[in-house]
Amino acid sequence: MATATTAGRPTPERIFNALNAFQQTAALRTAIELDVFTAIGAGANTAAVLATKTGASEKGVRILCDYLTIQGFLAKEQGRYALTQESAIFLDRKSPACLASMAGFLGTERARSIFDSLTLAVRNGGSVWSEGDNTKPNDEFWVAFAKSMVPLIVPAAEFIARLLHADDGKPMKVLDIAAGHGMYGITVARKNSKAEIVALDWPAVLQVAQDNARKFGVTDRYSVREGSALETELGSGYDYVLLTNIFHHFDMPTCEKLMRRVHSALKPGGKAITLEFVPNEDRVTPPTAASFSLIMLANTDAGDAYTFSEYEKMFRNAGFASTSLQPVPDMPQHVLVSEKSA
Amino acid sequence: MATATTAGRPTPERIFNALNAFQQTAALRTAIELDVFTAIGAGANTAAVLATKTGASEKGVRILCDYLTIQGFLAKEQGRYALTQESAIFLDRKSPACLASMAGFLGTERARSIFDSLTLAVRNGGSVWSEGDNTKPNDEFWVAFAKSMVPLIVPAAEFIARLLHADDGKPMKVLDIAAGHGMYGITVARKNSKAEIVALDWPAVLQVAQDNARKFGVTDRYSVREGSALETELGSGYDYVLLTNIFHHFDMPTCEKLMRRVHSALKPGGKAITLEFVPNEDRVTPPTAASFSLIMLANTDAGDAYTFSEYEKMFRNAGFASTSLQPVPDMPQHVLVSEKSA
Repeated sequence: MATATTAGRPTPERIFNALNAFQQTAALRTAIELDVFTAIGAGANTAAVLATKTGASEKGVRILCDYLTIQGFLAKEQGRYALTQESAIFLDRKSPACLASMAGFLGTERARSIFDSLTLAVRNGGSVWSEGDNTKPNDEFWVAFAKSMVPLIVPAAEFIARLLHADDGKPMKVLDIAAGHGMYGITVARKNSKAEIVALDWPAVLQVAQDNARKFGVTDRYSVREGSALETELGSGYDYVLLTNIFHHFDMPTCEKLMRRVHSALKPGGKAITLEFVPNEDRVTPPTAASFSLIMLANTDAGDAYTFSEYEKMFRNAGFASTSLQPVPDMPQHVLVSEKSA
Repeated sequence: MATATTAGRPTPERIFNALNAFQQTAALRTAIELDVFTAIGAGANTAAVLATKTGASEKGVRILCDYLTIQGFLAKEQGRYALTQESAIFLDRKSPACLASMAGFLGTERARSIFDSLTLAVRNGGSVWSEGDNTKPNDEFWVAFAKSMVPLIVPAAEFIARLLHADDGKPMKVLDIAAGHGMYGITVARKNSKAEIVALDWPAVLQVAQDNARKFGVTDRYSVREGSALETELGSGYDYVLLTNIFHHFDMPTCEKLMRRVHSALKPGGKAITLEFVPNEDRVTPPTAASFSLIMLANTDAGDAYTFSEYEKMFRNAGFASTSLQPVPDMPQHVLVSEKSA
């Protein structure tokens, strides 16, 4: 929300709003929990009707929906609420692109409690969270991630499948590192019946990936490797290695170590495909990618959102002569493509 | 932050940002705690120098300051940080208008924990907080408020003093209901040496008000009444009764009851001066005043941010034939003036 001013003078409104910004998280989580967006999508458009549909009080629903309107998630006209285009697509559970499940991972009590120690994290230069080194399974956290975040990654997964020319149907062997829900590799397998996927992650998380592989009918071409991406034998002769949202958890030497392992696992002419939040060199634009650094500071011992020049250097040190950068359409992320010399 | 789109298509960025909005609160609180703004104001403008000044890590400070830049609290140019005009005025502790103390009340762990039960509050139509009825002292909460929020109220206190023509120096007797830090009444007393102030609040809070009265040298014209605004004898013959940020804690019948007591306490021709967050009749504009409803839903059993037509009706029922509305310059609040018939 922009700072309102009278006659252009500075006001404390931005400060007031930031100190109260935690309320935005609470309000959206509550609306998802009460499934207000689905109810409005189904035609309940007054506080009175919504109260009946959601089992809440009329006053509570009215205040919540007014707040959601102020935050841009609803429209209000003559006391009647309507979904915005965004909310209809991403928050109504009847929409195939619904992202409501993200509230199972983002803005949870666990996510918020990690930020209770932000001052210490700034002092230390890294998380005070016991799981901050990301070298142990931490099942509860990553299973919640794998189960909650699938819908958000659809645009990036489709984009990566196009980069791999999955539609051409040529045989390809793909290693999906830190597979999580597995949907990056599974999307390739769905589009290319000749693609074989090897998914690597911790055992409990791989169960979620294997469930998804079953759900999408690709189990015959889906195998797994259990363990750490930094320790486990990766195999070799891959056409592609997918590295989706993994580097930001580690410091630069660890990223280089991982990328050297990837270089060895690729066949000549094979490609490493990295999906990341990549801020511009100024590190303050674009906003979502640049803000991701703070999330890594609070959550990891040594992670960061690296710039393209930092990635290019790390990947060069790991054996990749050149790396190119492409924005993912409709998402605040980029894909980096690094080819192993033929 | 506006939702970024590629080719104008809707994206999940607004949802992602809202689920992470709690991080804005944490980052600003951390910056205030480490006194980053004062250090930058004093000339420390790189992450390395700021790290030394604040006793934090260079990486942590860099990531925090980048995030504050993204949020509009700092500017960044060639790796050097600078205060924005707003931050220089309101967040540098060397500035007389510094509001950093607000972090002692807004966005605290207590404030955030109340929002952990927002879903229940929406279901109930009111807070599940044991102190939500606002009829008991609740010392810890209100003393924290009284000690933290003084700087924020300066513009409104000055505006009210002008409305009372305090500078004219005519004798006046002023009752300051739910005085808190006492600064509304004290500001009148400072500008008018013939003003006598009676402050009403819970005993522990009145100690903060009396400390402030001493600090500003008005104790000889400053007396107190201890107890609830709804129960305690108010006295009579007042020229003005100040009702600053009190009505939003109560339901309409309770507001009317309080205003009837105020009507009795005023002398004929006397004025009730109400300071409030007053949303427009649509209840979704302007943003800060309209958002205040949600804070009251979470924090109080029956409070709300009432519209002007609601206040006018309540005050008419309490005996005031007419009420006028004036915006407070530079603040998201309004003053309502209600005159008792002569």
